[in-house]
Parts: sequence; C-alpha cells; structure tokens
Amino acid sequence: MNELIERIAEDLQKVRETKPLVHHITNYVVMNETANLTLSLGALPVMAHAHEEVEEMVAMAGALVLNIGTLDPYWIESMLKAGKKANELGTPVVLDPVGAGATRYRTESAKEILDAVKVSVIRGNAAEIATLAGAEAQIKGVESMEPPEGMLENGHRLSSYYGCVVAITGKDDHVIDGSETIIVSNGTPALGGVTGTGCMATTALAVFSAVEKDHLVAAAGALACFGIAGENAAAKTGGHPGSFHATLYDEVARLDATQVKEKVKLVSMTGV
Amino acid sequence: MNELIERIAEDLQKVRETKPLVHHITNYVVMNETANLTLSLGALPVMAHAHEEVEEMVAMAGALVLNIGTLDPYWIESMLKAGKKANELGTPVVLDPVGAGATRYRTESAKEILDAVKVSVIRGNAAEIATLAGAEAQIKGVESMEPPEGMLENGHRLSSYYGCVVAITGKDDHVIDGSETIIVSNGTPALGGVTGTGCMATTALAVFSAVEKDHLVAAAGALACFGIAGENAAAKTGGHPGSFHATLYDEVARLDATQVKEKVKLVSMTGV
Amino acid sequence: MNELIERIAEDLQKVRETKPLVHHITNYVVMNETANLTLSLGALPVMAHAHEEVEEMVAMAGALVLNIGTLDPYWIESMLKAGKKANELGTPVVLDPVGAGATRYRTESAKEILDAVKVSVIRGNAAEIATLAGAEAQIKGVESMEPPEGMLENGHRLSSYYGCVVAITGKDDHVIDGSETIIVSNGTPALGGVTGTGCMATTALAVFSAVEKDHLVAAAGALACFGIAGENAAAKTGGHPGSFHATLYDEVARLDATQVKEKVKLVSMTGV
Repeated sequence: MNELIERIAEDLQKVRETKPLVHHITNYVVMNETANLTLSLGALPVMAHAHEEVEEMVAMAGALVLNIGTLDPYWIESMLKAGKKANELGTPVVLDPVGAGATRYRTESAKEILDAVKVSVIRGNAAEIATLAGAEAQIKGVESMEPPEGMLENGHRLSSYYGCVVAITGKDDHVIDGSETIIVSNGTPALGGVTGTGCMATTALAVFSAVEKDHLVAAAGALACFGIAGENAAAKTGGHPGSFHATLYDEVARLDATQVKEKVKLVSMTGV
Repeated sequence: MNELIERIAEDLQKVRETKPLVHHITNYVVMNETANLTLSLGALPVMAHAHEEVEEMVAMAGALVLNIGTLDPYWIESMLKAGKKANELGTPVVLDPVGAGATRYRTESAKEILDAVKVSVIRGNAAEIATLAGAEAQIKGVESMEPPEGMLENGHRLSSYYGCVVAITGKDDHVIDGSETIIVSNGTPALGGVTGTGCMATTALAVFSAVEKDHLVAAAGALACFGIAGENAAAKTGGHPGSFHATLYDEVARLDATQVKEKVKLVSMTGV
Repeated sequence: MNELIERIAEDLQKVRETKPLVHHITNYVVMNETANLTLSLGALPVMAHAHEEVEEMVAMAGALVLNIGTLDPYWIESMLKAGKKANELGTPVVLDPVGAGATRYRTESAKEILDAVKVSVIRGNAAEIATLAGAEAQIKGVESMEPPEGMLENGHRLSSYYGCVVAITGKDDHVIDGSETIIVSNGTPALGGVTGTGCMATTALAVFSAVEKDHLVAAAGALACFGIAGENAAAKTGGHPGSFHATLYDEVARLDATQVKEKVKLVSMTGV
C-alpha cells in the first residue's frame, strides 16, 4: 500500500512536470470546469469536436476524455472518430457515460462507444455502471438513486467484459480492474452540491492516465487527489457550494506529495 | 398575504425534501450556472437536447425549462418535442424568451413555441414581454432598455392570450396571472452585473413549479427566494461581480423558511 | 505616451457610459466567462450563432468577436455571415484564432475568415500568430510552446498583409499596427492558470474597439486594463486559480481611471 501511495504522489509530480495535453469531447455544462480542473492539476486541456480535426487533435494528446453528458449524433460520431484514432496510437481513453440508464439513447450510445473503442477507464455512478453491466438501476436524470447492492459485482462484470478499469464514484469510490479493487475513501458530500464534479473526476482520471501506464493506479490516484482537494476546500468554506466550487480549484492546484501521503485513504482488495 | 408567505416557505422546504428533476433545454452561456442554481435550491438538474431522447428525459422530470438564449433550428425542434411531451404528461413548462424583440428569429421562435406548447410560465424582461404581447419594445442584445410604461398591460394581455403566468423581472418583479398581479420587491442591482441571472430566475421558477400547482404562487415564491439570496450575497460581498456570483449559490443553499418569512417583500393586486 | 494613457483611461470611462453591445460568436468553453467579462467592463454581451439571426444581431452591436476555440462548419459559416455584415456596416471585428497551427482545420478556418472578412484586430499567442504569418510554430493543443524568436516579425508581417492590428499576448503583450508596436507589460502568471483568459483578452479588445476608432489604442488599452485587473486579483488571492478567477471580475469592475494611470506599463516603438 505504501508503494501505491508513493506512486500516486510521484504521478501527481509527473503531471506537473510533463504537462500532458488532455483532449476532451465533453458536455456543454462542464467544459469550462473540466478545462480549469485540468489546468489546476498542472496539465493542459483542449476541447475539439469537429469531425475535420478530432483525429489530428487527439494525435497530440496524452489522453482522451469522452463524456456523453449532452450527447447528440454529431458529437457521438466525433467521439467514435477520436476514440478509434486514440486506439491506433495507444493513447488512453476515459469514458464518462453520463446518464446511461436514464434514456435508451444514452445507454445505447455508451455501449456503441464501448463496442467500437477500446476504453482504458469507465467512470460512472452506481446506476450508470449497473446499466452498462446489464443490471437494473435507478437513475433520476443523471443522478444515481440506486442503493449499492450488487454494485461491486456490476463493476467486476463490466471490467472483465470490456477489459478495462471501472471506477464507480459515490460516498466511497471503487476502482476495479478485473478481480482487483481499490476503495478510495477521500472526498466530501460538498462535491455533490456542485454540478460537474463527476465529470471533473473523469478529467482527473484522464490526466493521471496520461502519465501512468497502470490504469488502476492512475484511477485510484486521480480520485484520491481530487477527493483530498475536495476535503480541503470543504474544510475552508464549510462546503457552501459557490465558495466551495471556487476554492476546489485552489486546493487542487495547491496539492502536493506531502498532503497526498498524509491524507490519502485507500484500501486494496482482491477477489470478486 | 401571510398565507402566501407560509406557502412559499413550505414550497422551498418541499423542493429540498422531494428533490425534483428539472429538465433544461437552455443556452450554452448559462448551462453550468442554471445547473448549479438547481442544485443549490435542493433540486436536480439535467440538460438534454438530442431529438432521440428529449421526450424520454422530460418524462422523468418534474418541470421543463425552455430557454432560447443561443437558439438554432435544431434546438428549437428539441424544445418543441420536449414541450409537447411535457403537455401530454401535465408537466409544467417554463419559457425564457431570451432576446425576443432583438431579432425576428428570436421573436418568431418564441411565438412558435408558445403556439405549439402550452406553457405554464413565461419569464422575461419588460422588452421581451412587450414584444410577445405585440407592443413596441427597445432591446439591446438581450437587455431591456424600455421604460416600464404599459408594462403591466403587456403582461396581462400576454397572460390572458396564452392562459399562463407571466413573470416580468426587473427592479421589481411583476408576476401576473390574468387579472391578478403579485409584485416581488426582493433582489439587488448586483444581479445585473452577472450574466445569466435572468436565466437562473427562470430555473428557480421551474424548480418551484415542480412542487407547487399554483403557478402564480410558484413564480412569486421562486423570485422572492432568488431575490433574497441575491440581497444576502450582495450584503456579504459588496456586490462585486465575481465574489457576488460565487456567494449567490452559497446564499441560495443557505436560505431557510425563517429567512424567507423575515425578508420577503410581496404586494398583491387584483385588476388590470 | 501620457496622451496615450489619458486616452485609455477615457476609453474605459466611455465603455461604462455608453455600454456598447458586443456580439460574440465564440467557443463553448468560455461563453459564460467572456459574457461576464463584458459586463464587468461595463458593456453588454450577446451570444448568437444561428444563421437566421447573426446578421440582424451584429447590426445592433458595437463590435463583433469571432473566436474559433470549438469551431465546426456551422459555426464558421455563422462567423463568415456575421463578419461580412459587420464589414458592410463598418463595425469592428476581432478575431481570436484559437489553436491555429494545432490542426489544419483550425489554421484553414482562421485563414478563411481573414480572407473573407476585413478584421480589425487579431489576438493570439505567439504560435497562433506565427502560424497565420506562415512561419513555423510549436503549439500544444491551444497553448503556445514557441520561444519568442521572430515573434515580432511575424506580427508585423501579419499586420501588413491583412492591414489590421495584431495583438500577441504572452508574458508581455505586443500590439502591432504595421510598423508601430506598443508593448504592454501588465498582467500576471496567474492568468495562465485559468482557462479562457486569452479569450477574455479578446473580448476586452472588442469592448474597447466599440468605443475607440484607433484599433492600436483600443488593443493596448484593453490589454493594459485587463492586465492591471489581473495584477490586482493576483495580489488579493495569491493567484490560486479558483479565487483568482472570481476576484478577476471584481477587479475589472472596480478598475478606474486613477488606477489605470498609476499602474499601466506601456512602451511604444516604431520600426519593424
């Protein structure tokens, strides 16, 4: 475990030194927020969706985010083109299946991407992951209402089926790779009071994936760092949403190896 | 009047307990802001515009926002589809005719929606409402420049014609249902220093409409609560726009029944 | 130089008194930010991209911003239509060629606009300007990685070719009109920690162009004012990105003639 924590702290350092470019094809609601999170982590964001340029843009990037939060056919086509190109180049692809389970179009679009593109990490809430794993789920818009029964099994099944890491975020985050699981217990309820913090977590995963080849480590590290910054911001602002939101970027930017080592809360488990 | 104020305080409580989902088809400028306002009020936002999913999404929602701030033909079609479905299901629909009167396309699109969809509440500034009521109006981009002469008559005429509540926001807000009017005098000039605060008011109307069947009460309550939060935020920040903007969400989230009862400023009038 | 500084202070005052409307056809990431910057400067923003209305909207505006940050064919067409109409009416047009050099599509679209529309000011980073001037450039997504060798020559060449002002922003900003150059040394590294601050600088240029006929003066004034506000915000927040971002709008709104005269850092040069 100490080795894992050391590696996370080093990965954060590596992000700041190498400033990887993260290409986002994401939703309108959070574009500004995820760009700012990328910068606060020390990396560089770019948003580009035109069919004319997505392949050329992703070729410059260290990781690709596909987020279906405000999907439509043009944007799904952009995601497929960029995702396939990323696969050709061995560039990690992180999928955020926002609202899978809420409408058939979201569920089908997420599956279409997963079938056409080799994704490195899927990040979703319990209901989105359950939906993609073929289980029943309760979802209200894009918020998971599901109690966590069967949650881990859904994650393991989805991880095995697509051969990728599955990160289920919630009160605790569960990062799953086949039969391995890391539970990340950092974070704060205040994150639920600001829109797009799930999408920001996805961006953090992509940023870490750009510098860390083991996607399980990248995902656990990204969620731990984002969660610790959230804890710090909540402590300074009482979690009031507007102040918390502004301070969250301060705390992400301020995060260092010492803080990570002191505050990280990880548990590792093997076996489904 | 005391009964009305009690009911507004109860509606705010009901929003927080039932967390209604509010489906937004809105403009790019304010998507993040209106999603965060929805959360701060205690409700859940979802943004979805694809023709493939808007009907399924609105079927899960407690209210629908249609906001034409960055309209184009695809989005107007999304609004028509979602609006008609909402009508079938008896779900309240709130229209924000941003910039009606500024261009013919905005005026015609707002009217097209009003003719095809039974809207519960229209929220606009004096110039937008005048335009839709067939009167002359002065508008600069999306800002009303019109002096308020004839404003109430325009509101009454529009309300009667479409059989809906009309909320005209400005220094004082006028909420009109046929021949009844409630004047809401909460608010602060600082709201005019931040983009999208009119759109946020529209979102607040939709959130309250999801829990309150009397749309006049819902509209007055939403504008009073949003206005009080604005006053509180201005008092804490001096109204400087960046600080005010962040603090506004804090104050919306912090608002409770006691504050509403203490600070609300309502006048009720009957007769055109 | 004192005359120039007086004029900049007067232009800021004129913005606040006349509240020009600035029509933006810009990218999804920064729409809210640039609208808020426009308001903080004292002007009025409007965002409109539908082919049905861009010509009518720009006819009401004092300046037009064309920003290709999240371009696609529909939006480029909107820019061409609005830009040509602005030319007919003598309305200044400011172009932000975001990411020119990063993909062929961006480079070609920026050139297509420059060939079809008479632009008043181009604002870009060193790599974007180099690309448009036909020089080699290093760009990572939308960030310039190029060392500044040849930077001024690129700017002069571009300015002469299109007969427009070229503003190259970076550590120092270089505003170029043919053989004249003004160097603006206001600003803070904290601006680089927040997404869209380059796009905000472009918006500031458009706001000043709406009230100042000499585009070289307008560009230098806008960048000086934005830079001074940035310095003030950095001093108050330590430059931590979330707090800095919120405070930046406060400081833009608070800026007055006295502060401008005290803090402005300009050097004027003639000759290529």
